[in-house]
Amino acid sequence: MSSQVKRIGVLTSGGDAPGMNAAVRGVVRTAVNQGIECVGIRRGWSGLINSDFVQLSGSSVSHIIDKGGTMLYTARSLEFMQHEGREKAIATCKLLGLDGIVAIGGDGTFRGALALSRQIAESGHKLEVVGIPATIDNDIGCSHYTIGFDTACNTAIECIDKLRDTMQSHERCSVVEVMGRHAGYLALYVGIAVGATAVLIPERTVDFERDVVEKIRRARLAGSTHYMVVVAEGAGSAIEIGKRIHEEVGIDPRVTVLGHIQRGGSPSARDRETASRMGYEAVMALAQGRGNRIIATRDGRIVDLDMEEALAMTKEFDMDRYDVLEALTNIGN
Amino acid sequence: MSSQVKRIGVLTSGGDAPGMNAAVRGVVRTAVNQGIECVGIRRGWSGLINSDFVQLSGSSVSHIIDKGGTMLYTARSLEFMQHEGREKAIATCKLLGLDGIVAIGGDGTFRGALALSRQIAESGHKLEVVGIPATIDNDIGCSHYTIGFDTACNTAIECIDKLRDTMQSHERCSVVEVMGRHAGYLALYVGIAVGATAVLIPERTVDFERDVVEKIRRARLAGSTHYMVVVAEGAGSAIEIGKRIHEEVGIDPRVTVLGHIQRGGSPSARDRETASRMGYEAVMALAQGRGNRIIATRDGRIVDLDMEEALAMTKEFDMDRYDVLEALTNIGN
Amino acid sequence: MSSQVKRIGVLTSGGDAPGMNAAVRGVVRTAVNQGIECVGIRRGWSGLINSDFVQLSGSSVSHIIDKGGTMLYTARSLEFMQHEGREKAIATCKLLGLDGIVAIGGDGTFRGALALSRQIAESGHKLEVVGIPATIDNDIGCSHYTIGFDTACNTAIECIDKLRDTMQSHERCSVVEVMGRHAGYLALYVGIAVGATAVLIPERTVDFERDVVEKIRRARLAGSTHYMVVVAEGAGSAIEIGKRIHEEVGIDPRVTVLGHIQRGGSPSARDRETASRMGYEAVMALAQGRGNRIIATRDGRIVDLDMEEALAMTKEFDMDRYDVLEALTNIGN
Amino acid sequence: MSSQVKRIGVLTSGGDAPGMNAAVRGVVRTAVNQGIECVGIRRGWSGLINSDFVQLSGSSVSHIIDKGGTMLYTARSLEFMQHEGREKAIATCKLLGLDGIVAIGGDGTFRGALALSRQIAESGHKLEVVGIPATIDNDIGCSHYTIGFDTACNTAIECIDKLRDTMQSHERCSVVEVMGRHAGYLALYVGIAVGATAVLIPERTVDFERDVVEKIRRARLAGSTHYMVVVAEGAGSAIEIGKRIHEEVGIDPRVTVLGHIQRGGSPSARDRETASRMGYEAVMALAQGRGNRIIATRDGRIVDLDMEEALAMTKEFDMDRYDVLEALTNIGN
Repeated sequence: MSSQVKRIGVLTSGGDAPGMNAAVRGVVRTAVNQGIECVGIRRGWSGLINSDFVQLSGSSVSHIIDKGGTMLYTARSLEFMQHEGREKAIATCKLLGLDGIVAIGGDGTFRGALALSRQIAESGHKLEVVGIPATIDNDIGCSHYTIGFDTACNTAIECIDKLRDTMQSHERCSVVEVMGRHAGYLALYVGIAVGATAVLIPERTVDFERDVVEKIRRARLAGSTHYMVVVAEGAGSAIEIGKRIHEEVGIDPRVTVLGHIQRGGSPSARDRETASRMGYEAVMALAQGRGNRIIATRDGRIVDLDMEEALAMTKEFDMDRYDVLEALTNIGN
Repeated sequence: MSSQVKRIGVLTSGGDAPGMNAAVRGVVRTAVNQGIECVGIRRGWSGLINSDFVQLSGSSVSHIIDKGGTMLYTARSLEFMQHEGREKAIATCKLLGLDGIVAIGGDGTFRGALALSRQIAESGHKLEVVGIPATIDNDIGCSHYTIGFDTACNTAIECIDKLRDTMQSHERCSVVEVMGRHAGYLALYVGIAVGATAVLIPERTVDFERDVVEKIRRARLAGSTHYMVVVAEGAGSAIEIGKRIHEEVGIDPRVTVLGHIQRGGSPSARDRETASRMGYEAVMALAQGRGNRIIATRDGRIVDLDMEEALAMTKEFDMDRYDVLEALTNIGN
Repeated sequence: MSSQVKRIGVLTSGGDAPGMNAAVRGVVRTAVNQGIECVGIRRGWSGLINSDFVQLSGSSVSHIIDKGGTMLYTARSLEFMQHEGREKAIATCKLLGLDGIVAIGGDGTFRGALALSRQIAESGHKLEVVGIPATIDNDIGCSHYTIGFDTACNTAIECIDKLRDTMQSHERCSVVEVMGRHAGYLALYVGIAVGATAVLIPERTVDFERDVVEKIRRARLAGSTHYMVVVAEGAGSAIEIGKRIHEEVGIDPRVTVLGHIQRGGSPSARDRETASRMGYEAVMALAQGRGNRIIATRDGRIVDLDMEEALAMTKEFDMDRYDVLEALTNIGN
Repeated sequence: MSSQVKRIGVLTSGGDAPGMNAAVRGVVRTAVNQGIECVGIRRGWSGLINSDFVQLSGSSVSHIIDKGGTMLYTARSLEFMQHEGREKAIATCKLLGLDGIVAIGGDGTFRGALALSRQIAESGHKLEVVGIPATIDNDIGCSHYTIGFDTACNTAIECIDKLRDTMQSHERCSVVEVMGRHAGYLALYVGIAVGATAVLIPERTVDFERDVVEKIRRARLAGSTHYMVVVAEGAGSAIEIGKRIHEEVGIDPRVTVLGHIQRGGSPSARDRETASRMGYEAVMALAQGRGNRIIATRDGRIVDLDMEEALAMTKEFDMDRYDVLEALTNIGN
């Protein structure tokens, strides 16, 4: 099949996630192999507004597959959310002669891409956009998996394993806040993986007595002398929860906010592999004439979905996992 | 639902895999919570033959979720492959009053479980068996994922990242042999994740000129001065391949056989989480009266399958991944 | 030489440090090899008060050399600081027939040991004590190195390397608080190892304009777009420093408090090796009739010092390192 | 003090070691701060012969402190060992107007530097050379510590910890070959740190019955069912030793050759810190008019030594460590 696409842009936008570099590499190398020129847009949409770009060859993306962060930098652009901002971006697209853009990021990134594509269509031009889901929160409705989630989980469990060493030695309670302002995927996954005493997530209303106090008590009765409470940032502040544990259980917890550590680090095998394949599929979609798509994982496979439909999808939170967590952390009698 | 199952055994058999401990913990904790007693059988099927066991409470499996290896030890038993060997195992099952056994391992382990279950049925007794797939090779036909694969991939890429540091500095070629006597899942996944120059797997006939020599030459022409060749052990010996590269390309590769390092290490988040849920589902199947099952991942979900049917399943090797690898390691022009 | 010492106790006290287990193993194995019985006292001095102990054989300490924390647990005991508390401890020593105690911890631990030894001497009995310095702060006057420091440094740089990935991608400033209430060893060492823009330590009066604002400005002028500020907890709160940077430089830093993560983790090669040798030397000192000693590293060698003299020693903070830091983070023009 | 030195070269030569990049950064940044220009010579001495160089500013060495390998590449040069080869190198030095060279590597590197310095002096010119010891083998006579050793030790113990997981599960013997053709520093340090059953080093004649067979037997009698034998490559081939264990003890060991993995990886805190300070001291020596020096650690401090004297120094192997190893791995009875 002969591709109409001659030159594409690639950018990373929103919060960075480990594996973004692997996705950029996947896009660039596949493009080169398909005879498509590739331009790296720096600092997300604002780079498109400000003509902040760099031409990329196959070797431009050597030695980045194992690096955290994003070589293209990332940013959030208020200007791009305005019609005028996007007009400037369109001017850059026209100047560079871009036929397509691969945008790596989250829902906000994809909505920006769609708005750009529509606005450019109004002017009689055509720009195909393809989104690649990358966020450590795993909170993108259309895709079961998002790039960066696995690395963030591994980073969190490595930190919590270290905390457990010292909590066990001192027979203390630890309260750990992990990322997730609107979603508890990371907290629940990590909670299961470290055998947490309790996990608090935004998807489930917290009953402090039932969900924290009683769990610590049962662990104590079963012989445990240290406890690990994992909190998604959207389910409450670890500091506040630590205080309340002190008040209601009479023990003095140590509080840790993992913070931005979870965003960095060399990507895991899963994130590198998934990102590489998603980058490949994004360009193949463009090369095969399928635009306005989001690359997603569904039922363990990588597929591409219509961007508008994909943006309307929601992902049900798997509450079964909460049952598993509760069964496994209940030490019994 | 009231469960007929009163007491179950749990064992790990065959090659060990990171996450086996998390699976054992999942089995024991779920059993305790379902009011089912749990007996740990040591050293796989030979422990059942030799009455080598230990009673397990909820706290017996504390602090193992993050540990590699298996607290129950593992072994391969020739004796259990014989009718007489299984008779001895049946005697232990009857003595201990086991209603069910959860066997964690690979296809051989499951076939043993099925043979045991049938032989015990002939004697008028009933023993329900459930298998949990755990092997770093990911080569179990019925399950898309097997416990230990993710940790092994991460261990391999961490080792290869280190090799790359020194290969880059010296501008050398590295040949790395990873595990996989009959399957290239690990080699191909790892190869994509490290951006290997070439990957050799047993599922694809090796044409040395096309698959190795030409790939190194194209990388060199594109400006690379170091090369990474990943070999599944079933696709050839790294030492032999290193020699042949020396003869045919005139460079002197450094050969590394990763070996048993790939079997160990603290399990990754994915392996701990999957193993925990599989352990839970194994006991829930028994508690709900579903015996002779294998817990498997299909299309991103955990399901239980009829053991006999599951053992007959084959998994098609995803050759698309090989195309992705080739596209991404071809630096272009 | 025939040893008069027949039975010794070993305990860990104060804040835990990675490598304490390796030191315990070193003490126990050496004692066993010298024909000396060994009793593990749990939870530091309070275990001696409460007769909380366990007899240890050579195999009791198998598989702990690579584990963080301390298998003997640790605690701080107010009661032991009182004469009456120590009387109870002395009763336990007499009951168990201990000739010596190896106390692993910091200065407070050693002062407790000395007080105990003196008080027991007043009663006409003899108890030889030996201290092994273990604290991640490296703030023990008599020893150039303390067990746990190296692991804590490595943990801190791994976390900061991850932070750097995301700070670079977003072109942000990061403020990281590391442990060290009274000492800047960890902060300065880590600061050099990560190439920090600025490091604040308690040993050096902070001039915010000179030590933070100006350093960030010079890095910016030299082309940097992200900055890493490392703060010892004794030199100020990272949150406050972050606010002040925002006010005075106009950028919005991300603040991370590493906290107790720094105390845990599998000990590094250096901590395992040093702890093993110090455990060995502690028992050899007792076996050779040298009591009231602290095992210390001086000029790269392990020696034993008189405990009273050692407790009076102070360690000069090596301000040259600060000059090195400044030279190396000044990117220049 | 006003420096006579205006422009220096920096190179890495021989086998690469983690921390070489941190040393290069230390040299370049210190030079810039002293007003000295800095030229990076690529691929060791052969780069000086072939005029393969790059001018380095302060920002040229940003983001390398945490990277393994060497950004300047390294090589071994036969040509430089000849008078004519060095003549070409001298021509480059004169062309570039170099007053000094900082050579990072091992003894061979330093001997090359000294030969160069003398040969250039014969021609009436002056070139001051300073050596920085960097080799994972720690086998440089004049310096107690060499850059890269700590990282290599940590890499080795992480690999061996993983091996132990699987060896324990299968109750097997593991034979691990670590680097060290002429020196057992790495093997012995690592052996103590992992609690090896036996360690074979080139500095001590191996009595197989006493040093391997008897140790495995005593461990077995004390209750151990797995064994870890660490071999320095200079003390024998792990494969041969594995075969002999099979013959003489009747168990079937698993053999692992760690190989070049030990050379790579992000440098440890200790290697980054030491390398940074050594780089600083190397330039300060030149700036202060002290040439023909080797920067070394002696008694825990960094000093500079006359190069000729330093090259004549030998380091006594600390056999006490072998006693410690033996005491601690003898589990006793």
